[in-house]
Amino acid sequence: MTDKIAVIGSGLIGRAWSISFARAGFNVDMTDKSPTALETSLGILKGGIKDLANNNLLHDQSVDEVFGRITPQKNIEVALEGATYIQENTAEVLEIKKEVYAELDVKAEPAAVIGSSTSGLVASLFTEDLKSRHRCLVAHPINPPYLVPAVELCPSPWTDAPSMDKARDIMERAGHKPITINKEIDAFVVNRLQVALLHEAFRLVDGGYASCADIDCAIKDGLALRWSFMGPFETIDLNAPGGIRDYCTRFGDLFERVGRSQTNIANFRGELLNEMERQRRRKLNPDDIRERTAWRDRRLMALAVHKQQAAEIIGS
Amino acid sequence: MTDKIAVIGSGLIGRAWSISFARAGFNVDMTDKSPTALETSLGILKGGIKDLANNNLLHDQSVDEVFGRITPQKNIEVALEGATYIQENTAEVLEIKKEVYAELDVKAEPAAVIGSSTSGLVASLFTEDLKSRHRCLVAHPINPPYLVPAVELCPSPWTDAPSMDKARDIMERAGHKPITINKEIDAFVVNRLQVALLHEAFRLVDGGYASCADIDCAIKDGLALRWSFMGPFETIDLNAPGGIRDYCTRFGDLFERVGRSQTNIANFRGELLNEMERQRRRKLNPDDIRERTAWRDRRLMALAVHKQQAAEIIGS
Repeated sequence: MTDKIAVIGSGLIGRAWSISFARAGFNVDMTDKSPTALETSLGILKGGIKDLANNNLLHDQSVDEVFGRITPQKNIEVALEGATYIQENTAEVLEIKKEVYAELDVKAEPAAVIGSSTSGLVASLFTEDLKSRHRCLVAHPINPPYLVPAVELCPSPWTDAPSMDKARDIMERAGHKPITINKEIDAFVVNRLQVALLHEAFRLVDGGYASCADIDCAIKDGLALRWSFMGPFETIDLNAPGGIRDYCTRFGDLFERVGRSQTNIANFRGELLNEMERQRRRKLNPDDIRERTAWRDRRLMALAVHKQQAAEIIGS
Repeated sequence: MTDKIAVIGSGLIGRAWSISFARAGFNVDMTDKSPTALETSLGILKGGIKDLANNNLLHDQSVDEVFGRITPQKNIEVALEGATYIQENTAEVLEIKKEVYAELDVKAEPAAVIGSSTSGLVASLFTEDLKSRHRCLVAHPINPPYLVPAVELCPSPWTDAPSMDKARDIMERAGHKPITINKEIDAFVVNRLQVALLHEAFRLVDGGYASCADIDCAIKDGLALRWSFMGPFETIDLNAPGGIRDYCTRFGDLFERVGRSQTNIANFRGELLNEMERQRRRKLNPDDIRERTAWRDRRLMALAVHKQQAAEIIGS
């Protein structure tokens, strides 16, 4: 484990990446334009590592061992020195990304690969004019990365194969499950799948067919059980005796017919959003969102432990 | 627990419903046009109950207790006698459904409500001409119902509210999570959500953006973790500090733009299916599908136990 990792940005995502890399044994230099943000982040970061320890998710390491691998660096030059992989987590604003990358272009080690945590901007938008644009790609986590293994790696048209390989290798060594996207696509894969499902969920609420709560039930007490350990392709492959061909032959007509009725675009604003917000706020008071988020993380941790044990005992 | 339930059809779904109802304490008469099928089904059925017992999913009841509540009935009149709820599980062929319902229309107790397990036919297609069409609805399980709590209740235009209420009550008492669909819709809610996601998954493979395995990873190691205990609405409601409105304001532009690029219909046949089948068969030999299906059920059982425990300890 000789790679040193530089994490750019000490906000929510930067901190989470730092924990994930440090837990896997990497030395991490975390840097931020704001010394105050950097200072503040350390306490939150240690709290996150303690939570993992309390849930048996530190792989038998102590909090101090893992925390000790993370060094806050006010000076970006020092953070980048010797770093062979850089995870960038700055604001989702194109002009900011361009500034940050112009700096990384000249200051990062020549051999370093740079992954961006962006969820909404493809890499070609902010790397086109860089000298070292071949080593830039998107490495988009599903938050928080220390609990959710998937990370999607999306190249720009000029990202080279060794940079993709390097990022994949780092992610695998960090215990992640990298998804390789073969060519650049808006919103990447994870959010495209989420958007497709959300559009239909929104249409169903908009049309008065079902409530948000019942749609949540359809997923959490229905579809997502199998999806949570197999994904959609293995699910349908096992849902007919002859596999995916058998399944598609049985349900192809229905699924194509339904698909043709799912082409109108849901409006993510206006009256539909008012209605969805009313329904959600009846379930969860605005003041309780923070507490419920902590509940979600506890459930995610328990699920991570369950999945590890189930994979060991039953197989994956 | 005074209701007696009649299960029509002793195939995969009929057997699974019988187990689910009997485990909850209902007395079940299971009937089938084929006496041989009915006879054969008993052994499989007992095996299923034993599997549940071995996984602590019988709620501290013995196999014999649960199995003893299920009576095979060659005579449909006897099965229907005194039954206040009927779960119909015959072949997904419109003419067969019409025949079965013509018989149930005259033979079922006047007060009995009839739910169909159909996944592809809306109730109006096979109940329009019945005298007692007001008491017929779809009660579509996600297989197997004794491991997957969600069941969707979909009325026809003439299903009355008391029948929907009765079905909902039976399902809740059987430990299910009923989803109430407010008006009839093709493919109901669960499969509509699945179809929306599958279409995008198929498009991504078709366009060469990602492999089936990487898309499965995006879901099983990514999106479906939160979905498996919250569903899509609570997930986005907790994914921005100000809840669903905050989330939709941040991501509405992106999500509407992506939605507009997701309107072409994936072909569930032809070259795309060949490619998906090649990918899946490299992962799983056709001869191993049956064994892998048993693995899936063991993982589903372990997940069911985990979710019960997590709900008790952490909350739901």
